[in-house]
Amino acid sequence: MQKITSPAAFIGLNDTGIISFGSGQPDLPPPEAIFKHLETPRLFKYGLIKGDEELRSLLAKEYPGAEAEDFVITNGASEALDLVFRAIYQLHGKVGVLVCKPYYYSYPPIIELAGLKPVYTNLIEGKIDLKDFEKKLKSVKVVLINSPSNPTGRVEEMETLKAIEKLCAKHGVYIISDEVYKDLIYERENYLLKGAQVITINSFSKTYSMCGLRVGYLWSRDKKIVDTVVDIKVHTSMNTNVLGQEMARNAMHVPHSFIEKQRQIWQERRDRLYGGLIALGFDLWKPEGAFYVLPKIKNSNRVVSELFHKHQVIVYDGEWFGAPGRIRLSYALDVKLIDEGLKRIKKYIQGKESWLK
Amino acid sequence: MQKITSPAAFIGLNDTGIISFGSGQPDLPPPEAIFKHLETPRLFKYGLIKGDEELRSLLAKEYPGAEAEDFVITNGASEALDLVFRAIYQLHGKVGVLVCKPYYYSYPPIIELAGLKPVYTNLIEGKIDLKDFEKKLKSVKVVLINSPSNPTGRVEEMETLKAIEKLCAKHGVYIISDEVYKDLIYERENYLLKGAQVITINSFSKTYSMCGLRVGYLWSRDKKIVDTVVDIKVHTSMNTNVLGQEMARNAMHVPHSFIEKQRQIWQERRDRLYGGLIALGFDLWKPEGAFYVLPKIKNSNRVVSELFHKHQVIVYDGEWFGAPGRIRLSYALDVKLIDEGLKRIKKYIQGKESWLK
Repeated sequence: MQKITSPAAFIGLNDTGIISFGSGQPDLPPPEAIFKHLETPRLFKYGLIKGDEELRSLLAKEYPGAEAEDFVITNGASEALDLVFRAIYQLHGKVGVLVCKPYYYSYPPIIELAGLKPVYTNLIEGKIDLKDFEKKLKSVKVVLINSPSNPTGRVEEMETLKAIEKLCAKHGVYIISDEVYKDLIYERENYLLKGAQVITINSFSKTYSMCGLRVGYLWSRDKKIVDTVVDIKVHTSMNTNVLGQEMARNAMHVPHSFIEKQRQIWQERRDRLYGGLIALGFDLWKPEGAFYVLPKIKNSNRVVSELFHKHQVIVYDGEWFGAPGRIRLSYALDVKLIDEGLKRIKKYIQGKESWLK
Repeated sequence: MQKITSPAAFIGLNDTGIISFGSGQPDLPPPEAIFKHLETPRLFKYGLIKGDEELRSLLAKEYPGAEAEDFVITNGASEALDLVFRAIYQLHGKVGVLVCKPYYYSYPPIIELAGLKPVYTNLIEGKIDLKDFEKKLKSVKVVLINSPSNPTGRVEEMETLKAIEKLCAKHGVYIISDEVYKDLIYERENYLLKGAQVITINSFSKTYSMCGLRVGYLWSRDKKIVDTVVDIKVHTSMNTNVLGQEMARNAMHVPHSFIEKQRQIWQERRDRLYGGLIALGFDLWKPEGAFYVLPKIKNSNRVVSELFHKHQVIVYDGEWFGAPGRIRLSYALDVKLIDEGLKRIKKYIQGKESWLK
């Protein structure tokens, strides 16, 4: 059986008969309204490198103190992160970036590709350990926060986030806040990191089910960061695709009830998968946001491979996220499919109960 | 009067009353057929990092010996170049890249951002000087060829290109062939660079008037390059926007007569602008492809600034392309606008005839 070494093995698979707890993409349809006014010739012209002005103005209204000029629209949150790290390298050279572990699997390579150095702080029960965080802070110029988190599904405590704001301001450290799951929280309100040194990353992918369109953004009050990002993007990709931006603009006019309705669906799925895994004897953190769980299981790589090849179930190896001995399951699929997936997992783990300890 | 230091100053300007010989984007509409089948939900899912399989298969048919697996669809030719340079840095470290001067203004920064080192060879009358080229070849691992060229409008001689293929094969040097203007040649057939070490860059922007959609690609028989590009792109931007790819796929089915008709329009414009500038006393190379001319003029930065502020005419400073003492004019605009622009330029250069020598 071929060893599966990264999520790339599963991307774009024709999924007949497969139950995929793999990729983190919503299966829900995007709002219909995003298809309005698409045939104007303007859509085929180069646009501003920063992105459509009206889209940026609409976004600025969502963040207190923000202005349209503080935003750059990017090819998804991925490009936003890549550009910010490259900008920091241009401004500060090979500095350290503090990353919480387990982490989103792209974080270490994207940091290293930009010429920066990842430094890790281990989460405790999926949450930031402020003591270790503060200790490591002295060796970095940037911290990367992802709350709600992929892959843990955890949301950081408000006190923790406020303490991080203060610590970073004191030490002159940038905070990159990857908030792509900010609209998917089930337990309580989130707290969005603020401040002159904060660079916020977000996208339309999760909230509006627009993953394939690749429209994301960054915003910061730090003009130097924003300007440097634009200076890089003008050469490396130019404007973000204009048609996707137009759809994103349409999405901004969709009533908030759309998001609320989606959130309820996600919460139902979370309860189904979390409850189902608990019933099967798995040890896992209760997810508070995003759409992932990260249960313990020994021989996780073998599990990934056998579940796929013998049971047609896709799960991701925790090791890809810096969490060996765990697997990541996304619950971005219908409850019926979640149930069927749980049935297959139940069959697979029979006789392997000791792996769950 | 504010000094204008880069093309970014003009991008996205509301152009009422302005005659722009600036940005290199077609004003012609894209083929209507590209709007077919756009509302399928598939368009909102993540796609393969390499890009849509059918689109790559269609592209492979256009290049002898190519296979779908040799292609990566990117956010325009810009991202293709960025990814290839970053891949070369991953594989070979800080190596040299031979760049012909004058060059497309993004070449030096995009090479440096990837951690590589530009090395320059001066063109003679807008064409490669093989003697200097061969001398410089010893200090580089990559050569970057752009024929037809932005900003010179020149097409390299077939013998030159064949000699470059041989030289690079002999010295183990990659050829990156930026062929975004390959369908816009007026004087004779182009010769597309071939070989195991060639990495071809192209896009749908110029041929199909789809600049704003940002769909480009790279292809190479060098599997290591293609795989490394994919390994980077999975983290830095993921799939290229799926809707743009769908439109590109539709564009591939547009009859070749569409391209031929566009080419005739470009040729008419070229003749108008080239002839007009000659009549005004400018010294310039006859453009053979693409849609640019690069006439001589002293005090080029002052000219750019004064033409814009006093006459509402946008031209680019040759200095941005490594050609001080020249200005770049794009003829991607209607002949009536070309005539009006020429009138304004005529007025401006009255009494400055000595600047044209």
